[in-house]
Amino acid sequence: MPKQVDHDARRDQVARVAADLVADHGLGALTVRRVAEAAGHSTTVVSHYFADRRDLVRATYRVAAARSSARFDAALVDADDPLQACLEALLPLDLERARDVRTWLAFWAMAVDDPELAAEQDARVQSARRRITDVLAGEQERGRVRSGTDLADVAYRLLVLVHGVGTHAEFDRGYWTPGRQRQAVADELAGLLVVRRATG
Amino acid sequence: MPKQVDHDARRDQVARVAADLVADHGLGALTVRRVAEAAGHSTTVVSHYFADRRDLVRATYRVAAARSSARFDAALVDADDPLQACLEALLPLDLERARDVRTWLAFWAMAVDDPELAAEQDARVQSARRRITDVLAGEQERGRVRSGTDLADVAYRLLVLVHGVGTHAEFDRGYWTPGRQRQAVADELAGLLVVRRATG
Repeated sequence: MPKQVDHDARRDQVARVAADLVADHGLGALTVRRVAEAAGHSTTVVSHYFADRRDLVRATYRVAAARSSARFDAALVDADDPLQACLEALLPLDLERARDVRTWLAFWAMAVDDPELAAEQDARVQSARRRITDVLAGEQERGRVRSGTDLADVAYRLLVLVHGVGTHAEFDRGYWTPGRQRQAVADELAGLLVVRRATG
Repeated sequence: MPKQVDHDARRDQVARVAADLVADHGLGALTVRRVAEAAGHSTTVVSHYFADRRDLVRATYRVAAARSSARFDAALVDADDPLQACLEALLPLDLERARDVRTWLAFWAMAVDDPELAAEQDARVQSARRRITDVLAGEQERGRVRSGTDLADVAYRLLVLVHGVGTHAEFDRGYWTPGRQRQAVADELAGLLVVRRATG
């Protein structure tokens, strides 16, 4: 049994390898054997960290969710337009982020019939919704969001938008250029709630 | 070999049984053996119509897409507000339609790594987009949609909305009541493009 720090690091490494496998080759590629090969471990090592395929799918989802969450936080640093910036952080604007969309799609398909995974999906969504609500509240204080707006409702609509765009962009990247993705967010903000937007 | 008419009818029956299996028990339940049991046929009969599991997944998607398409057309008959009506037809407002969402999610997860299925997914999306564009054009003629609006772009945004709501409603039906789903469509139409809405 390795030390705790090695244990965590190795588990993380295997999870990232598994996430790459799903992004590159789809959910069908996610087997203990292929993960072990790609990670350079024996299947025994992989099985030590992940009980089964379902556990691996959950781990890949957590890797993608953590990346998404980190991008969200980074986007808020020094942003002239924090609302646009944090929502763009959730869009598949580049290929790296598009890979994460494939992980969501794989997870959703499994979670739909698995109450525990569905609960995890819902918890992540509600967490993202709260974080967007906080940004909306900050913008409301700055006079950029109409008062009287239910911010938690608006936050959910914005998540619907970025997840809807993410899904469609996966199948039609020719149409869903980064510019069109950003414009969709800007239009939604303008339509739903915003008094005036920063120009920065 | 049965007559053509029986052949088609039996294939359709097996596809519907497969779609029900996915809706009730998830993609994991979709095996030739379980479909055969549920359809009351031998696995040989099922294998005669569907080459493999991928072929079955595609068939379930087509069943759901055909149902969705029929609802879209039916919604337009005598509608006071055809735009709202046809978009509502694509939302999981009741449990029957919510079952179809599970089929989409299963199909998307497979299509993401399968160019032929991805092409079919894209073709369905573009077809739905054209049909929404046609409804938008009719509403523009009636003076209900701003002129100068790129209707095909707006149609894509509306599809993003209904698919985004459909996905989220799957995991949080408590929030996404039929009323909230309808309101999301109404707000999106008001925000994106509409001069005035019918009150009917």
